[in-house]
Amino acid sequence: MDLNSDLGEGFGAWRMGDDEAMLDIVTSANIACGFHAGDPGVMRRVCARAAERGVTIGAHVGYRDLAGFGRRALDISPADLTDDVLYQIGALDAFARAAGSSVKYVKAHGALYNTAAVDPAQAAALVEGVRQFGTGLGLLCPPDSEMLRAASAAGVTGYAEAFADRAYTPEGRLVSRKLPGAVLHDADEVAARATAMATTGSVIDVDGGKLELRAVSLCVHGDTPGAVDIARRIRASLTDAGVTVESFV
Amino acid sequence: MDLNSDLGEGFGAWRMGDDEAMLDIVTSANIACGFHAGDPGVMRRVCARAAERGVTIGAHVGYRDLAGFGRRALDISPADLTDDVLYQIGALDAFARAAGSSVKYVKAHGALYNTAAVDPAQAAALVEGVRQFGTGLGLLCPPDSEMLRAASAAGVTGYAEAFADRAYTPEGRLVSRKLPGAVLHDADEVAARATAMATTGSVIDVDGGKLELRAVSLCVHGDTPGAVDIARRIRASLTDAGVTVESFV
Amino acid sequence: MDLNSDLGEGFGAWRMGDDEAMLDIVTSANIACGFHAGDPGVMRRVCARAAERGVTIGAHVGYRDLAGFGRRALDISPADLTDDVLYQIGALDAFARAAGSSVKYVKAHGALYNTAAVDPAQAAALVEGVRQFGTGLGLLCPPDSEMLRAASAAGVTGYAEAFADRAYTPEGRLVSRKLPGAVLHDADEVAARATAMATTGSVIDVDGGKLELRAVSLCVHGDTPGAVDIARRIRASLTDAGVTVESFV
Amino acid sequence: MDLNSDLGEGFGAWRMGDDEAMLDIVTSANIACGFHAGDPGVMRRVCARAAERGVTIGAHVGYRDLAGFGRRALDISPADLTDDVLYQIGALDAFARAAGSSVKYVKAHGALYNTAAVDPAQAAALVEGVRQFGTGLGLLCPPDSEMLRAASAAGVTGYAEAFADRAYTPEGRLVSRKLPGAVLHDADEVAARATAMATTGSVIDVDGGKLELRAVSLCVHGDTPGAVDIARRIRASLTDAGVTVESFV
Repeated sequence: MDLNSDLGEGFGAWRMGDDEAMLDIVTSANIACGFHAGDPGVMRRVCARAAERGVTIGAHVGYRDLAGFGRRALDISPADLTDDVLYQIGALDAFARAAGSSVKYVKAHGALYNTAAVDPAQAAALVEGVRQFGTGLGLLCPPDSEMLRAASAAGVTGYAEAFADRAYTPEGRLVSRKLPGAVLHDADEVAARATAMATTGSVIDVDGGKLELRAVSLCVHGDTPGAVDIARRIRASLTDAGVTVESFV
Repeated sequence: MDLNSDLGEGFGAWRMGDDEAMLDIVTSANIACGFHAGDPGVMRRVCARAAERGVTIGAHVGYRDLAGFGRRALDISPADLTDDVLYQIGALDAFARAAGSSVKYVKAHGALYNTAAVDPAQAAALVEGVRQFGTGLGLLCPPDSEMLRAASAAGVTGYAEAFADRAYTPEGRLVSRKLPGAVLHDADEVAARATAMATTGSVIDVDGGKLELRAVSLCVHGDTPGAVDIARRIRASLTDAGVTVESFV
Repeated sequence: MDLNSDLGEGFGAWRMGDDEAMLDIVTSANIACGFHAGDPGVMRRVCARAAERGVTIGAHVGYRDLAGFGRRALDISPADLTDDVLYQIGALDAFARAAGSSVKYVKAHGALYNTAAVDPAQAAALVEGVRQFGTGLGLLCPPDSEMLRAASAAGVTGYAEAFADRAYTPEGRLVSRKLPGAVLHDADEVAARATAMATTGSVIDVDGGKLELRAVSLCVHGDTPGAVDIARRIRASLTDAGVTVESFV
Repeated sequence: MDLNSDLGEGFGAWRMGDDEAMLDIVTSANIACGFHAGDPGVMRRVCARAAERGVTIGAHVGYRDLAGFGRRALDISPADLTDDVLYQIGALDAFARAAGSSVKYVKAHGALYNTAAVDPAQAAALVEGVRQFGTGLGLLCPPDSEMLRAASAAGVTGYAEAFADRAYTPEGRLVSRKLPGAVLHDADEVAARATAMATTGSVIDVDGGKLELRAVSLCVHGDTPGAVDIARRIRASLTDAGVTVESFV
């Protein structure tokens, strides 16, 4: 099982999250590429630290919206989206290569992730940018999403990820953040769910049923001190259960 | 002799220069990478057209200053400059590769060009970004500049360029644009100077003396209809004189 | 009848449209405020020229999206939209006042105009920014729109505008640009329609019926030489028909 | 004696400093206006809180350089600088007025502050932007600076500020941050120096001599928890010494 996290989300004088701590926990780093967060200096530092620790480097691509941190849907044309994605991958790969590594996969950020999960046109445009980079990059996706289908159709390898700290519906969708219980905060519970996902390929859904959830990666957060602790607990719990924690690529 | 020109300098809804016309004239295209001009859509289009015509692709890197078009000196630290340069090269290379080509050289834009020509620290930082990209990129430089010396010191191949439409001092410097006669507008005269540079390695300086000026590339402009015509005349004049017009790399 | 046009849409080294020519034709100038186009230097120049000619100054507010020229819908929260609108009005008003005038009205640009025309929440947020500026600004709106209703509800004066060069449905909506005949290019026809709107308060719709269309302002374009000529024709036709061409505020 | 501090320096999802805590300590708030930091939402919040507490609102204007936080010198033309300054003041004033207050003064940020302190042309351009806003704004300046002289020449009221936590040379200049002892970290010492400045108009310079330093405002920092504590100590020390802590305008 892989652990991935969003890193390098500072910009200029601003910092976000504890990149150093998280790089000791995760096996894959989704590194911001400058459109929703991340500047060249941050990108270099996180790529260098990731490469030193053997953490796989992924391009965390987003809408060009620093003021909104990429969390606002943008009605961009598919052609422009493909171009924006390709630009971001190329920029990050330069730092990954300077650090002796390379970009191995792509993950969409924020509103782009949410839109491409359900919108076939945006999903296809995102995948086309990934495909055009030409080095066989993978794409980290929600399970059973338009993103995953678009990747498959384009010959790009999609990888399904799950969230240990989020409640799922019986249909395998994330419970909306607007509903109570959508986000789990108890470290023990989250770690237990992560371990269940890794060892049984299933998890208890919001109605108490057993949900089959096949994922090769778990997304963990690192933007608060509490989040870092939970991530550490997840990794420890997985290891204790005999799960090998390693990158999916 | 190579002919290079600054292309892809539009942004969003804004256009600048006649990229299509210039790509039929030049052998090397300095393509803006998004920091002073250029957006992913422009970069894709110009890379595609350049690749189709066999025009060599160069990364035209600048300060992050869209509002000032990269023409304002920015007191950036050498480390940050290296990062900004590497970012821009990587982004452009993704489009060059998607077009079946790749970035072959780098040229600094505007205030960065002027600063790195005379400032050893900025020159070294620029060169370091070029070197770190790791594919043996060349650097297009003013003759006898700090940029050329920094390239040599770092094992990066520097290529000297000259301007057919600019007056030179006896010391080989460009006459300041603030002085009369600094920029030549007569197409016949400019074409004749270009041909002299290519065939004799020298040109008449502002005092009427003979200036030795060894350059492998001539920079031509395309941002006005008149400029495109002059560029066309330069190419015709070179060809008529038996000079092979081809890229320097 | 007022004539309004989008002006000051350059940015940095980039220009768009012929602001000088249009300021001799229109009575109201929608001036970009830096979010989708316009920089402080452009804003100053256009405000100064408008004030000299007695052209009324309006704030042309848009989404923060230079790369997309404000033409891409952005799913911004109402609170953030209100803040973005207020920011833009304040910035432009400083230049209007330095020129001896002041901002008298607001018009939404591009995707914000289209969204706020039909979305009550975005319309209300836009109007709230206008209202908070506190100097009794008007809001230029499509007829029978959510924008107009939101203005009315908030005690902001809405002014209806029409387009002489666009076809209308029998319901008074603009025919989609995706359909043939949506945009009219014949100068005589456009001028005749403008004059009919001004003198009869009606125009022939796309089905040949008579559409009542009460507007106090006509939007004319100036982004191409042909557009400037049509605008000039509209003004001449109105004047010939005895219509007083003057600002709506 | 006034206490001023740089506030509202977040942007989008990023925060910097503890604006809430500082607004309980200072009497004047230098609020970022969007060019080096600050977005419309931050500007609204800080203006509202400042107005509630009776804290005077100042426009903290900087170079257009989010990536560099306005700390990098930018060789901008005087005309463009004036325009950038006027734009920022206007934008902030809209939020100050919406909160029932208004901008009362301007302070330059970062590299602009340092440049305009010693460069007459940049100082004059900055002052011209302040003057053109037209509401009699003051300008917070280093003592004995080009900024202060330019303000005086233009009929703008300059106000001198001092730094309680910085060492001064016998000539009244700040000791360079590159030298040891330039920044003082001991809360007792800093509070004692602040009180000396307020009660005697003098302070001990780096060579142990007595330096006359007439300032109407002391700049205090709030970007770290330790800084907030020192600011609180300074205020308490001033109050204990019988100094009235109130805004300079």
